[in-house]
Amino acid sequence: MSSRTLYSVVPAGGSGTRLWPLSRANHPKFLHALAHPGQSILQATVARLTPLSPPDRTFVVTGVAHAAAVARQLPDLPEENLLVEPSPRDSCAAIGLAAAVIARRDPDAIMGSFAADHLVRRPSAFQDAIRVAIEGARRGLLMTVGIKPTHPETGYGYLRMGETIGDGIMQVAEFKEKPSADVAAEYLRSGQYLWNASMFVWRVGVFLDELARQRPELHAGLTTIAAAWGTPEQDRVLGEVWPTLQRISVDHAVMEGAADVGKVATVPGDFGWTDLGDFHTLGEIRAEEEFGGTDDAGNVVMADPDTVVLQDTTGSVVVAQSGRMIATVGLRDAIVVDTPDALLVCSRKQAQEVKAIVDELKRRGDSHSHLL
Amino acid sequence: MSSRTLYSVVPAGGSGTRLWPLSRANHPKFLHALAHPGQSILQATVARLTPLSPPDRTFVVTGVAHAAAVARQLPDLPEENLLVEPSPRDSCAAIGLAAAVIARRDPDAIMGSFAADHLVRRPSAFQDAIRVAIEGARRGLLMTVGIKPTHPETGYGYLRMGETIGDGIMQVAEFKEKPSADVAAEYLRSGQYLWNASMFVWRVGVFLDELARQRPELHAGLTTIAAAWGTPEQDRVLGEVWPTLQRISVDHAVMEGAADVGKVATVPGDFGWTDLGDFHTLGEIRAEEEFGGTDDAGNVVMADPDTVVLQDTTGSVVVAQSGRMIATVGLRDAIVVDTPDALLVCSRKQAQEVKAIVDELKRRGDSHSHLL
Repeated sequence: MSSRTLYSVVPAGGSGTRLWPLSRANHPKFLHALAHPGQSILQATVARLTPLSPPDRTFVVTGVAHAAAVARQLPDLPEENLLVEPSPRDSCAAIGLAAAVIARRDPDAIMGSFAADHLVRRPSAFQDAIRVAIEGARRGLLMTVGIKPTHPETGYGYLRMGETIGDGIMQVAEFKEKPSADVAAEYLRSGQYLWNASMFVWRVGVFLDELARQRPELHAGLTTIAAAWGTPEQDRVLGEVWPTLQRISVDHAVMEGAADVGKVATVPGDFGWTDLGDFHTLGEIRAEEEFGGTDDAGNVVMADPDTVVLQDTTGSVVVAQSGRMIATVGLRDAIVVDTPDALLVCSRKQAQEVKAIVDELKRRGDSHSHLL
Repeated sequence: MSSRTLYSVVPAGGSGTRLWPLSRANHPKFLHALAHPGQSILQATVARLTPLSPPDRTFVVTGVAHAAAVARQLPDLPEENLLVEPSPRDSCAAIGLAAAVIARRDPDAIMGSFAADHLVRRPSAFQDAIRVAIEGARRGLLMTVGIKPTHPETGYGYLRMGETIGDGIMQVAEFKEKPSADVAAEYLRSGQYLWNASMFVWRVGVFLDELARQRPELHAGLTTIAAAWGTPEQDRVLGEVWPTLQRISVDHAVMEGAADVGKVATVPGDFGWTDLGDFHTLGEIRAEEEFGGTDDAGNVVMADPDTVVLQDTTGSVVVAQSGRMIATVGLRDAIVVDTPDALLVCSRKQAQEVKAIVDELKRRGDSHSHLL
């Protein structure tokens, strides 16, 4: 069997609010070259899947607002493999649509789903983990790839591992929501938990059967759409059925219930994964030599050096996209993000709270919607 | 004798580099409405002199770059009272030119000189102090108005007071350069020192005689220019003589030497003076109720509130002139100054170091001169 047997699905949604003002609803995180110069996070995601999935087996699911940008960033993606959602219906509809469309092409297909906006530092280790997951999927399991925690992160969900059920494959006993700091520390200490990075590998048939068992209406709707896919009826059916689909994550809709009946397993992965979720994390990544490194004072500067003057400034992250001169004096562990219409100045330890800024701009209403 | 007997001279020079990027060479500090809404520092300076000097006895000395702006900001200033320096030759040439021009109009004139870019919170107390200084000037003294120190400031020169020689008038024993922190603390403790705020009041004849005694060439040059002032020869003589004048401050050229021979006295003033020299000081002024006050978290916001979101930010100063959205998270005692082509982010305790940014931009050469 070829190693390139996988159908890869990349749900490209979410605006990355903790990366505001760089990431916006109309130019979200996955379209930005945040880590590798000249390569967006989406492009890097597809590139590391290419050894597993040829382009004709690679699918991207995205919203209408980003279809053109995705198509241009991925010129090798076949047009019919760009699945455009008429409106956001959460991850189960997005991933389920891809599963149903792929199942009509190849009922025995093994499919993996990988977020468009995560970073993997060691792609070959990632590919090795996916190959193990494919073996689990062949055995009829809904596979996840969990991440070995490196710190007591409170921003992710966790997987509690059960017994070893194969070479590098562990049962998933339970899905856990984002924990408190104390609980996260206990998870880390125990060694029994993995970060849930929303990476899934399964036989499409196994997934769709579980969807039918747990969410029959959602399964019926997606099956109806998939039956019309590629026919003259596609747009009419999509327009009628899509808005009726339940908004629910694939974790809640399928994975948690499948874990309860012993159908979910995981491959503990260790391949330098990060979700690049906020500017502090982005700064940590960019501080690595491979991604540009720091200046002598530990600052990460993502800007034309000629437009930046840092005076007695250390451990800070400066992102400049406006072309303006940026000068700092006496900053410690700060974040400065300068865009043509909005500026963020933030302490690194509160980088997660940038979401509150976006919430406030939403609260202020239409006059601020152009900033979101 | 009328209380409005004073000829007032306002040297309007200096770019206020510690207020960069708000203050620029082509739009310096004195042209900005930093304290009173809708009134520039220059306008406020002239307004508080009006009870002492009618418009026809008020003079402004400025550079060619700012002549038009000054003329427009001061519509009541007679055209002939706007003295335009062909090039900067430091304060003795600027103030001496005014003294020489005034002396030709009125040899017995009493003249005061007051920087264009300082703030006075209690104008009536200021006017009272100047009236005392006028009495000293009548007695043939070169009067200064010193400021009672409120903290051990290292950014100003000091005056050491000698004996009391009149009602509210003290001899000036010595001029002192900007001190170290230890020395400034000792000055404050002793009660014998005043800040030198570069405010002078004198009979023009007394000043010009001292200038002739100490700097005869400078005196001769200024006398030659003044003789041609208002005649068809003015521009030719100014063009020939001005570039030959010594570049020296009035303190070094005249006041220090005059103090040595007992001709300088001072009025200790206490009228809420500040030089508004940096953004920390500006923040302190604007934090006062009279100048706008702070928000509940002690922040001073000089911006359209609709363009600012401050999240967990305290004790900070935000100045917005670009129209862009400014968002902050987790800032403590910081300064954010946003202009259309340059941004400054600075800790308040290092506000004086903003000058280093300007120095660095100068060092970078022509490609950055538009930012100066």
